[in-house]
Amino acid sequence: MVVSQSPERDKQPQSNFDVDYVIHYTIPPNESAEAEASFTQLITALSAAGFATEVRPGRTPSSLLVFLKLASTSLLHSQIYRARVQDWLYGVRPAAPAASPENPADMDRYFADDEPVTEAERLRLAYMLITRPRNEGGAGVTPKTGHWRFVQSVFPLHDRAFNREWLSEWSKKYYLDEADIGKIRDRMGERVAFYFAFLQSYFAFLLFPAAFGFAAWLVLGPFSTVYALVNCLWAVVFFEHWKMKEVDLAVQWGFQFERESVDPVTGEIVKVYSPYKRLARQLLQVPFAAACVAALGGVIVSCFAIEIFINEVYNGPFKQYLTFLPTVLLTIFNPTLTTLLTRLAERLTEIENYETRDAHQAAFVQKIFVINFITSYLGIFLTAFVYVPFGKILVPYLDVFQFTAQRFTAEGKPLPTKDWKINPNRLTKQVIYFTVTAQIVNFATEVIVPYAKRKIFRTVEKVQTEMSEKSSSGQPKDQPDEASFLKRVRNEAELDEYDVTVDYREMVVQFGYLSLFSVVWPLTACSFLVNNWVEARSDAMKIATNCQRPIPWRADSIGPWLNALGFLAWLGSITSAALVFLFHHGGGHKSGGLDLEGSPWDIRGWALLLSILFAEHLYLLVQIVVRGVIRKLDSPGLLKEKKERFVMRKKLLERMVERDVSAEASGPGISAGEAITREALEEEARRLSVVGEGRPEQLFWQRQRGASETIQVGRALIAEVRIPLWSDAT
Amino acid sequence: MVVSQSPERDKQPQSNFDVDYVIHYTIPPNESAEAEASFTQLITALSAAGFATEVRPGRTPSSLLVFLKLASTSLLHSQIYRARVQDWLYGVRPAAPAASPENPADMDRYFADDEPVTEAERLRLAYMLITRPRNEGGAGVTPKTGHWRFVQSVFPLHDRAFNREWLSEWSKKYYLDEADIGKIRDRMGERVAFYFAFLQSYFAFLLFPAAFGFAAWLVLGPFSTVYALVNCLWAVVFFEHWKMKEVDLAVQWGFQFERESVDPVTGEIVKVYSPYKRLARQLLQVPFAAACVAALGGVIVSCFAIEIFINEVYNGPFKQYLTFLPTVLLTIFNPTLTTLLTRLAERLTEIENYETRDAHQAAFVQKIFVINFITSYLGIFLTAFVYVPFGKILVPYLDVFQFTAQRFTAEGKPLPTKDWKINPNRLTKQVIYFTVTAQIVNFATEVIVPYAKRKIFRTVEKVQTEMSEKSSSGQPKDQPDEASFLKRVRNEAELDEYDVTVDYREMVVQFGYLSLFSVVWPLTACSFLVNNWVEARSDAMKIATNCQRPIPWRADSIGPWLNALGFLAWLGSITSAALVFLFHHGGGHKSGGLDLEGSPWDIRGWALLLSILFAEHLYLLVQIVVRGVIRKLDSPGLLKEKKERFVMRKKLLERMVERDVSAEASGPGISAGEAITREALEEEARRLSVVGEGRPEQLFWQRQRGASETIQVGRALIAEVRIPLWSDAT
Repeated sequence: MVVSQSPERDKQPQSNFDVDYVIHYTIPPNESAEAEASFTQLITALSAAGFATEVRPGRTPSSLLVFLKLASTSLLHSQIYRARVQDWLYGVRPAAPAASPENPADMDRYFADDEPVTEAERLRLAYMLITRPRNEGGAGVTPKTGHWRFVQSVFPLHDRAFNREWLSEWSKKYYLDEADIGKIRDRMGERVAFYFAFLQSYFAFLLFPAAFGFAAWLVLGPFSTVYALVNCLWAVVFFEHWKMKEVDLAVQWGFQFERESVDPVTGEIVKVYSPYKRLARQLLQVPFAAACVAALGGVIVSCFAIEIFINEVYNGPFKQYLTFLPTVLLTIFNPTLTTLLTRLAERLTEIENYETRDAHQAAFVQKIFVINFITSYLGIFLTAFVYVPFGKILVPYLDVFQFTAQRFTAEGKPLPTKDWKINPNRLTKQVIYFTVTAQIVNFATEVIVPYAKRKIFRTVEKVQTEMSEKSSSGQPKDQPDEASFLKRVRNEAELDEYDVTVDYREMVVQFGYLSLFSVVWPLTACSFLVNNWVEARSDAMKIATNCQRPIPWRADSIGPWLNALGFLAWLGSITSAALVFLFHHGGGHKSGGLDLEGSPWDIRGWALLLSILFAEHLYLLVQIVVRGVIRKLDSPGLLKEKKERFVMRKKLLERMVERDVSAEASGPGISAGEAITREALEEEARRLSVVGEGRPEQLFWQRQRGASETIQVGRALIAEVRIPLWSDAT
Repeated sequence: MVVSQSPERDKQPQSNFDVDYVIHYTIPPNESAEAEASFTQLITALSAAGFATEVRPGRTPSSLLVFLKLASTSLLHSQIYRARVQDWLYGVRPAAPAASPENPADMDRYFADDEPVTEAERLRLAYMLITRPRNEGGAGVTPKTGHWRFVQSVFPLHDRAFNREWLSEWSKKYYLDEADIGKIRDRMGERVAFYFAFLQSYFAFLLFPAAFGFAAWLVLGPFSTVYALVNCLWAVVFFEHWKMKEVDLAVQWGFQFERESVDPVTGEIVKVYSPYKRLARQLLQVPFAAACVAALGGVIVSCFAIEIFINEVYNGPFKQYLTFLPTVLLTIFNPTLTTLLTRLAERLTEIENYETRDAHQAAFVQKIFVINFITSYLGIFLTAFVYVPFGKILVPYLDVFQFTAQRFTAEGKPLPTKDWKINPNRLTKQVIYFTVTAQIVNFATEVIVPYAKRKIFRTVEKVQTEMSEKSSSGQPKDQPDEASFLKRVRNEAELDEYDVTVDYREMVVQFGYLSLFSVVWPLTACSFLVNNWVEARSDAMKIATNCQRPIPWRADSIGPWLNALGFLAWLGSITSAALVFLFHHGGGHKSGGLDLEGSPWDIRGWALLLSILFAEHLYLLVQIVVRGVIRKLDSPGLLKEKKERFVMRKKLLERMVERDVSAEASGPGISAGEAITREALEEEARRLSVVGEGRPEQLFWQRQRGASETIQVGRALIAEVRIPLWSDAT
């Protein structure tokens, strides 16, 4: 029986039937007994943790969909309350939740008015309940591992209505504001929201270099010192601003990690791992980096050399076909090697055995940044710093590729290769390729390819299922009112998980082009500005349609990418200085510049190094200044947090002060004592000492009893000064 | 009447008569009426703040000594309790004080057993009470300003017994341990203790470069690459270690500033000052630094040039006298200029108008560091990087000083000045002077000169007083049992305040010599090791005998000096590389090295710059690694603090969990339901929908009622897989 669908329903956005999470459960035919036992355990565990469950058949008969929702609002509230108190205890939030759990009415009011539960909070908490170990009150379900290996994935369902609104709103806006990011945060959690906040901040900051770059392109041309300076300054300001903004956002979103909270000293984490052992394993990063450089670098250098040889030296037969050789080689080797090395990086990070997800992720990102750095920038580095200055010396060696070309190199150095000798165009072309063409290609692979892939895959599957349907009655017969919903869930179950790392990487690599090489082609930022407007929307679309809804993890920063940004900004100061020095031909004053007609040794090494040294230290100095200035500016989030913390403290303190106002000693008052003379008092003290009553300390403090006596004695002493003694001597 | 003194009393350490603070009150003869009125106000204010007061005549008739002690233990306790609670509220201490102020017995137990009051705490609190504004419960006495201008100083009294023990203990010890520093902390407060902790840590760390330097001196000789590398590495390790140690100490001492606590946003500080205005004024630092360089640099360069000319070029009459000219000039101009510039720096810092004492101090230290940097290191820089490489070119220009010498320079370049041409000895001599002789001179000016000055000053004064005594009866007639005590207090009133900045400066400058120039003379660290052993003791002696007892301020770090240390360590990587490159003649491989016989332009600029560039980046890399490693090592203080915080949180959380165990919803249980079929259930749902009871959501979740039904349905679905459908198709 073919499922009948009501076409009207599909048009208006469907509800999610209150489903919090869906578990995609697979049943390998040869393990169905184990899968069945495990399924019983799964439902039991989830039920014990407080979930209502429903099961439905999956797309294929060998998979099930288990639907979960938190069984009661009171469970949800008590869990969220607990999580918030825990946040407060760990210093993550400034104030304790203002409700007492004993009073249900108070709690209802608190959740209704004071701090409502966001969808992200609810989903995060539900996920924690599913995955947390049983002794901590969760169900202990860990997808794909151990006896939960049949649990293929645990994912929340997309909120169609929200997604539709989200995409249509963003497609109409030029500029995303904080409210837009806030909505994402409430739905998808801080981790995804942080990415969009970063993207938005970067986009806003790009406006300046885009405008300035356009002006520089018109007026100054490439390799301009002024552009290089402004560009580096911009990079510093952006980096430091984002560092501040990041903290600000974390605080505004009421959430700031206290990193120590996951430390083994607290006894929270059982795994103990010697830091020395980890350090030893971390040393493996050095050979790893070397391997990356050797493997990827080797491929890129070889392809580079082959390309130059074929395009600029070789003139023999089949040239039109051979031109494609380097591209073919790169397309074959680069992705393969990258995949291999990424896997190696993942394995290495696992061996390093970090205590927290964050630390693991940071270490992994560090490694893949090495890979990305090489694949993204090495080509341009080769052109700028090897091909152009040393080409004349190195190109003759390229005849190793072509035996027949040996004849005209045997004569000596002057090869008939005028093309490549003075070809800074090659550099410009390369930069334009990476900053325009590559961005478009990237967009295509990111959005269009997965979509097409999914379409094809589904068609194939449909045909397969239809074929098997003919031979049996195994196709799930859904209830008509659920049918379209289940169809949608089955589709979502097959989507990939959203990995925010990929998107960050793309943006960081892009920032690298801007920082490192935009002096070659000042329009770079314009291209990126356009690209990033599209990027934000296409990423939103990717999340909404190409990926499962992300689990709303929290985050208080863009994490390890921050270091990568800082590194690229710094390196930018060096490469910009070097590029300007080598390629700037405008002014006659640049005597150290590259003389493209002369020998490469004409470059004044010391002048090049001096300009690099100068630029780098200027950069570091500017960074210190900018950091100082930005730190002094007000940060709305921090201000808010400080105020909150202060109000809380003030309240506590006031309560305490009230309390001890009565207890406080008021000190010896000033009583207008009877008239006394110093002598009389001292006499009295002497008397006390005679009767043996006084220790010297007591005596000392009894000479003047009370403040009024001190005043009297003091005034007497001062009176003596009034007729200065030394005036007598004159 | 001359005061009779009991000589026995003076031998055994005297008690301080329970005096907490002494106010040195001066009465200018022409303002005695104002002084009298102000005195009355003073005693009234102090008394209202809770102090018992006694007044005694000062050394001269125009000064009074006002003795203060906290009137009651209960006042002290309530104040300290309040301060500790405030610390807790501001996150400075992990746990609230464990006593309730309502119960006096509990408070007594708390102060007797749990957390006794240290002397430093008592004195700090008393000082706060004296100086805090009246609306905050203090007496509002601010020495030397406004209508308190007659209050010359407010100082605590030295604890003679402790000082005697302190000095004698330290003079017998090779090595100071944490307990020794702890004692200082309990008496003098964290600020002084931090200095000694730093000194001790530095001393301990010096053992390594002293030993290695000695070995290097024997085996490697000066300008050794290996020594330079090891020295830089050591500097990094020391710097990073101290950064860690500093935090550790602050935490161990139960005290860590939360810098924000003094921020205007909290409303605590009334003064509001635009950060932009401050920023504008901070820009004045640039002309200030320029002025320092111009003035001090000018003097040093001139003296340097004159010295070289006289010693190495000039051969005329009076040479033996003229030799002293540069020293005389330096001795005249340098201190004068330094004093002037220091005053200017103080003034500038005041204009910048910082909100906190700490920020003010940091800004001031930054400025005087510039002055110190020039006076301390410029001479050596000139020798190493100007005199030696460019001497041949520059020295001929020195004949500007001596007209008569013009005859033999008129012939051309080859001056008969073989001496200075190849004289790296000059550099070595200079380094040895600064690292040995200057340290000894410094010791003398720091300890012996003030002592002698005081002796002389007192003798003069005594004679004066005796003279005036003859003409009047104004000399104070002390009670015999107080006489020697008062004499001591009068002496202490005349001592200088202890300024820990001076001592830090000395150590930081010393660290600079080690980091920047010790590659010239590897024995540097040995000299410093000996010097610093003496330094710790002589500083202790200075505090105990040459200065007033310091007010026990708190501190959580060595403050702005940390940046200075970091800067010097970094600069050391550059100077060491340059020095090794320029002066190392050992290996033939150093083709870039300075050829002392040849022209200075033989130095390969690019090689020099490359080696600097390399060294600096190696340094930065090593720093990142060392920082990472040190951060991973355990810090006892932080561990302790974390444990404390965690225990507190755990306790709070447990209490809460107990509370809501009853409230927590247990989730839908698994009841072994009656046998059901999927069809029957779905039928039921359909029925519900017919009666109009169910929204689609309700229906969805009612298909399977309870977990047991989900399990049944799931097992039924799985059972279908057991005979795989697609196996039919084959």
